Amino acid sequence: MRRIKLTIAYDGTEFHGWQVQPALPTIQSCLEEIFAGIEKRPVHVAGSGRTDAGVHALAQVAGVSLENSIPVANLRKAVNRLLPPSIRLLAAGEVHTDFHPRYDAISKTYEYRIWRGEVVSPFQQRFIHHHPYVMSDAAFCEAARIFTGEHDFSAFAAADGRDAAVRSKVRTIFRSEAVRNGDQLTYRVSGSGFLKHMVRNIVGTLLEAGKGNVTNDGIHRLLDPANGLRANPTAPAKGLFLVRVEYPGIESSDPEATSTPAPPIVGA
Amino acid sequence: MRRIKLTIAYDGTEFHGWQVQPALPTIQSCLEEIFAGIEKRPVHVAGSGRTDAGVHALAQVAGVSLENSIPVANLRKAVNRLLPPSIRLLAAGEVHTDFHPRYDAISKTYEYRIWRGEVVSPFQQRFIHHHPYVMSDAAFCEAARIFTGEHDFSAFAAADGRDAAVRSKVRTIFRSEAVRNGDQLTYRVSGSGFLKHMVRNIVGTLLEAGKGNVTNDGIHRLLDPANGLRANPTAPAKGLFLVRVEYPGIESSDPEATSTPAPPIVGA
Repeated sequence: MRRIKLTIAYDGTEFHGWQVQPALPTIQSCLEEIFAGIEKRPVHVAGSGRTDAGVHALAQVAGVSLENSIPVANLRKAVNRLLPPSIRLLAAGEVHTDFHPRYDAISKTYEYRIWRGEVVSPFQQRFIHHHPYVMSDAAFCEAARIFTGEHDFSAFAAADGRDAAVRSKVRTIFRSEAVRNGDQLTYRVSGSGFLKHMVRNIVGTLLEAGKGNVTNDGIHRLLDPANGLRANPTAPAKGLFLVRVEYPGIESSDPEATSTPAPPIVGA
Repeated sequence: MRRIKLTIAYDGTEFHGWQVQPALPTIQSCLEEIFAGIEKRPVHVAGSGRTDAGVHALAQVAGVSLENSIPVANLRKAVNRLLPPSIRLLAAGEVHTDFHPRYDAISKTYEYRIWRGEVVSPFQQRFIHHHPYVMSDAAFCEAARIFTGEHDFSAFAAADGRDAAVRSKVRTIFRSEAVRNGDQLTYRVSGSGFLKHMVRNIVGTLLEAGKGNVTNDGIHRLLDPANGLRANPTAPAKGLFLVRVEYPGIESSDPEATSTPAPPIVGA
């Protein structure tokens, strides 16, 4: 069996997230169904992590094991012919047989896009959170830097669900920065791993910081689990993109996953 | 009654074109319904021209006459709150009472986007025609320039419908150019006016020129109505954008309609 590393982009608007769910369209189901058709058997496609309903990916990474000997260049063509146009296989490459997209990942980067102008372009509206209200973008950007480093993110984990059983909520953030460019405010965060809803809860908190409702000291208190606090509202899924997943030694072979795409702004 | 000039952007994917059609979603119906709600009477919204089902606009221009005295800045906000996010009112401004968006227009610019790469980004797939096949982009670009000037476009009019009764099919093209930038091939044409399907029929012909199926002489023959020829296949609607409509003396007050937006490319 060959192990194939898949790099996948998707517009998450019409999917119920990455993970297979009975009777609901998900990215993983689309891929598993296509590979099952190629292999004539049930096939598991492992992702680097789940993305929630409505979250997009510029370069999600997944792994699949195939008996079929189709060359990887042809595999990309064949799979893209079968996928809906809102999901694209950007790259497929053979890797060592024990490659695991989740356990082997050393860094993930997410980007959250906020539109500060009054009017969101119809060509962008699926991919950006509209927040035209008065706030301090400088305070948002300053607060963003506080998250860099190793922290206990208990206050930023989803209240429900899968992380309840996870013992440690400590994660290392390599870089946490926001910039405003024209009317777009973009938050970008890279880290060793992320809890469910963590990026959206950080962004929700940064928006409160911009509005003056949360101070930098307040964020430091949220990052101390001894205080037992909960972070501010979860920002909407549509602004969030999984941008990049990195692996030891193999990133440079994957141009789509290492280049930084231009923000998709048309017209207004 | 005040006369208001409206500048409108739309993602045409889910609309049956500009023009009102019974029981089908169109851009004009959405606008007329909202203005009728504001005016408490039936309201006509006149466009600078129809766009076909699936065609997009970065800056369509329309005119509406209102009794309501709402300030134009508030009007934009109010209308955008009621429109679906795939249609945005970019600008609303008071103009002289006999302004007519169609008869007063002196120039219209369309852009047609073709993706030459193997994989279309999921974030672009609604807005670009995928044509990854072998052809000469240089021949496409060279042929594009032939259309500049005054020509009889009978061969490029829609076979059916509204232009059958139009006496003259002569139109003046101010500029007709194509450029390739990375994997995107973009055709841009400005002219005094356009027949139904004319831009898409020009693009269909340019694709044939790129493939070597139509020579430059062949295009000149198409532009001579004495030959009674018909142009090549109509290119798909999804790649076409109405970019700009110009009026004597008032263009410079309309930044959205005069700036050239960056092509909306994300990721691959």
